[in-house]
Amino acid sequence: MTPEIHGIIGYTITPFSPDGEGLDLPALGQSIDRLIDSGVHAIAPLGSTGEGAYLSDSEWQQVAQYSLAQIDRRVPSIVSVSDLTTAGAIRRARFAQAHGADALMVLPSAYWKLSPAEIRQHYRAIGAAVDLPIMLYNNPATSGTDLPVELILQIVREVDNVTMVKESTGDIQRMHQLQVLGEGQVPFYNGCNPLALEAFVAGAKGWCTAAPNLIAELNLGLYQAVRDGELEQARALFYRQLPLLDFILKGGLPATIKAGLGLTGLPVGEPRRPVFGLDEAGTERLRGLLEQLR
Amino acid sequence: MTPEIHGIIGYTITPFSPDGEGLDLPALGQSIDRLIDSGVHAIAPLGSTGEGAYLSDSEWQQVAQYSLAQIDRRVPSIVSVSDLTTAGAIRRARFAQAHGADALMVLPSAYWKLSPAEIRQHYRAIGAAVDLPIMLYNNPATSGTDLPVELILQIVREVDNVTMVKESTGDIQRMHQLQVLGEGQVPFYNGCNPLALEAFVAGAKGWCTAAPNLIAELNLGLYQAVRDGELEQARALFYRQLPLLDFILKGGLPATIKAGLGLTGLPVGEPRRPVFGLDEAGTERLRGLLEQLR
Amino acid sequence: MTPEIHGIIGYTITPFSPDGEGLDLPALGQSIDRLIDSGVHAIAPLGSTGEGAYLSDSEWQQVAQYSLAQIDRRVPSIVSVSDLTTAGAIRRARFAQAHGADALMVLPSAYWKLSPAEIRQHYRAIGAAVDLPIMLYNNPATSGTDLPVELILQIVREVDNVTMVKESTGDIQRMHQLQVLGEGQVPFYNGCNPLALEAFVAGAKGWCTAAPNLIAELNLGLYQAVRDGELEQARALFYRQLPLLDFILKGGLPATIKAGLGLTGLPVGEPRRPVFGLDEAGTERLRGLLEQLR
Amino acid sequence: MTPEIHGIIGYTITPFSPDGEGLDLPALGQSIDRLIDSGVHAIAPLGSTGEGAYLSDSEWQQVAQYSLAQIDRRVPSIVSVSDLTTAGAIRRARFAQAHGADALMVLPSAYWKLSPAEIRQHYRAIGAAVDLPIMLYNNPATSGTDLPVELILQIVREVDNVTMVKESTGDIQRMHQLQVLGEGQVPFYNGCNPLALEAFVAGAKGWCTAAPNLIAELNLGLYQAVRDGELEQARALFYRQLPLLDFILKGGLPATIKAGLGLTGLPVGEPRRPVFGLDEAGTERLRGLLEQLR
Repeated sequence: MTPEIHGIIGYTITPFSPDGEGLDLPALGQSIDRLIDSGVHAIAPLGSTGEGAYLSDSEWQQVAQYSLAQIDRRVPSIVSVSDLTTAGAIRRARFAQAHGADALMVLPSAYWKLSPAEIRQHYRAIGAAVDLPIMLYNNPATSGTDLPVELILQIVREVDNVTMVKESTGDIQRMHQLQVLGEGQVPFYNGCNPLALEAFVAGAKGWCTAAPNLIAELNLGLYQAVRDGELEQARALFYRQLPLLDFILKGGLPATIKAGLGLTGLPVGEPRRPVFGLDEAGTERLRGLLEQLR
Repeated sequence: MTPEIHGIIGYTITPFSPDGEGLDLPALGQSIDRLIDSGVHAIAPLGSTGEGAYLSDSEWQQVAQYSLAQIDRRVPSIVSVSDLTTAGAIRRARFAQAHGADALMVLPSAYWKLSPAEIRQHYRAIGAAVDLPIMLYNNPATSGTDLPVELILQIVREVDNVTMVKESTGDIQRMHQLQVLGEGQVPFYNGCNPLALEAFVAGAKGWCTAAPNLIAELNLGLYQAVRDGELEQARALFYRQLPLLDFILKGGLPATIKAGLGLTGLPVGEPRRPVFGLDEAGTERLRGLLEQLR
Repeated sequence: MTPEIHGIIGYTITPFSPDGEGLDLPALGQSIDRLIDSGVHAIAPLGSTGEGAYLSDSEWQQVAQYSLAQIDRRVPSIVSVSDLTTAGAIRRARFAQAHGADALMVLPSAYWKLSPAEIRQHYRAIGAAVDLPIMLYNNPATSGTDLPVELILQIVREVDNVTMVKESTGDIQRMHQLQVLGEGQVPFYNGCNPLALEAFVAGAKGWCTAAPNLIAELNLGLYQAVRDGELEQARALFYRQLPLLDFILKGGLPATIKAGLGLTGLPVGEPRRPVFGLDEAGTERLRGLLEQLR
Repeated sequence: MTPEIHGIIGYTITPFSPDGEGLDLPALGQSIDRLIDSGVHAIAPLGSTGEGAYLSDSEWQQVAQYSLAQIDRRVPSIVSVSDLTTAGAIRRARFAQAHGADALMVLPSAYWKLSPAEIRQHYRAIGAAVDLPIMLYNNPATSGTDLPVELILQIVREVDNVTMVKESTGDIQRMHQLQVLGEGQVPFYNGCNPLALEAFVAGAKGWCTAAPNLIAELNLGLYQAVRDGELEQARALFYRQLPLLDFILKGGLPATIKAGLGLTGLPVGEPRRPVFGLDEAGTERLRGLLEQLR
């Protein structure tokens, strides 16, 4: 049976060797342990933050397999298996299932804009290829395709194992629509860091975020405060962490999270080119932000 | 001394005679009494809902004078004095002040897009012409000009009596910026109905809305629940009224609010052409929504 | 019978007294004479460049009456009669007709976004109120409403005297659609200065522009070169005047054209506040651009 | 020495076996021969139309090698070598050079939005890795990144072998800027089919298009008419082919071009999933459009 996914769902980064070419799996293992030790409720490997799109197929498999082994079911795992082709996404989905993933995350990656019918078929095909629950992920900023809530719910209704929705448009009204049109029955998750407070208030069941790599305690505290109905405290905790959330979003998650891990004693390399690592000024700014949150 | 503006700030509509030509001031008076009796914390005449932009100068003055006399300081009043020309806005501002307004609301109306320097000068000139506190109103959907938070705060700093900000972009992150960059010192108000819950949670001091013409109790209940830190109740109240909030926003505030008042026994005519009144199907839908909320 | 509108259609500015308050009708007369003497094929008073939206009703009537008397049918006149209310637009349309306008230009001005049905009714009502031909004007940047080509052609079909279309979105593909969907039977005019070459090449019958106040010879030359099928010359003439066309568009037409008229010996004041006149640096840049084109 | 690239530059499709899995290289060869026989001035393999983004590395290499061998320098070849990673793009660039490409096309593909500095570094690295001339390709609709003209020209100046620019935003004013800011020295190419007439008129040196797979004669005729200064004829030819150009753009280039090749006796399979082939109704519409152009 699938564990229920809720709360703080931490993205992993993918550490590279200093020259950016090879994978650094031991560092990946350490970063996963850190996340679990910090108390996150679930872990999502190979997402946007994990630079999944920049890996070769072979690297992707190594990272998936290693991550799942390291997580070792201590918390639920949700592996992002997105690929430009349906066949590729299915291959990854099956690989993740074979290696013990608890759930899958699927973004409708696109070069050519996809029609609603094409998107539905994509999810149907992936859903039919595996038994795992799937989190449909909408993020037009990276995928280039914006799924209206009506389309999302249509897919949820017609593909049995698409059971969760992750919304990253940054528009809180999408969550209202998910809540209202889904009649409160479709669990949705927030993927937009600066919307963390409002998403929980609006009913999001979880927050998928790379921030716990750096400030897990604050992320978890916000979630708990909302659950406890402690609105004043939730607001205070939110505004306390907001500058950091804004910073990692604007600076690019792989660059800023990797720099932040380096600052806290876990060197994980830089993002793969053409994406740059955080420059010196940015790193100093990040150091300052982190110190204020200690 | 200026009364503090907070809570539910109700917009008035401007009733017209059945042929759409003349003003129906007695109906205006009744609608104002209803709002006050329902418990709103303040009243905002001649806003977008009040079709201020569609009135002749003479009509505008009649409505302003009549509204202020009818409110009679039972609650604070905030009169929208926006005009395409600075001279026109100043004339209206002075008129409103002379007739007892407690505060003014100013949208930077524009035909030609305004530069930041032009917008600043506009507010400086209006601010210098009156003694009343001014609420700066940002609503690119109707004004065609989007004021970044930095520009808004620059105006707040340099014009003494611009002391409040109303945000209607629908992007909750603007309120985060107002809170953070304004260091919690600049009171901001929400002007986007479907954002009511999140805006209060993010720290908005008030909600400027036409909804209290129809469902004041629910609007007030939401505000009170957030103030009391009753998050569950606030969320429930919000989702309960959201279908109506969405409906009046999408259907056009003058058309839907006027139809709703008619349904509740106060005929106020239709919006002025080219804006249509709510059609029959829409009116039936509205009747259904209102009945569900009784 | 209506004269055929084609070629270079020059907008007039509206001169104000130095303090920006009063109208300077003699200067208006001189600017009109200049345009006609320079050879423009038609004149369009009270458009965007003419700050029609910033005039009181009484001023608008003075400018309309004076302009028509001064043009005195030496060339066809197209008076912009746009107003936020349908009743106001009809009043202006009738006034323009009564004072000898040859045609009317109507932009669907909007505060509240208009539905297609509302826009159609607006044009039907104005069309029914006058006998003059009407040029439907689409310019979302100033009107806030973008009319799809299908809607435009629907209005052309259902309102007998809407016989011309002016397109100012800046997207040449709209003109392709007008040509193809209008089956070559609906004359369209370009209102986007930097698109002048391509619009003529795509089949536009005229170019509505404020530029002839400053560089009529170049505007007329471009039109003539395209008519003569002299593509090389048309391209050369276009790129020659493009820097000025870009400058007046980006700097704001009232501000730049007024400054340019001042530089050429005809002081016409500044735009009405909150719009600024061209600053010193801009004026120097404009002087340089004009000198290069002598 | 590099052959000059100009005129009609035809994209190839990538034929798949009926099940969508394997490559059909003989069909690719036939389609290339057709293009060359029809008179195109150059051929561009593995572009957007060629589904380059949907191929595995091994497939990409097979298609590149086979295409270059088949073209066999009968006309110049421009191979698209875009990849999400800089390392991957360099690998492809070197492969294409080793197998005889005349020029390369590089789109700044992105998952994470790239900064100007990252984009510049990407082009510098690729430029340094090969000796071939590079055509910088701007197409935000597929790449997610819009390169302003200033950035494009900065790259042209700082990377010796970036010598050509392909513009596909669909905004003709970008070409004006390339012409003016590039001082007429930077050859630019049009990648937006429905802009073909205006782009040539504005000075584009070539038109990169998949249309010659179906209507090469009309494409070539338009180019020739503009070169000959035959404006009337160019306009007539353009409007004649425009419905087809619009159709293939809106229907998706791989789907429509593949369907069109099938209709003309060369079966090349369907696009790779999740992209759909053209449905029956679309195919009938395409058949009709093609028949009208015979």
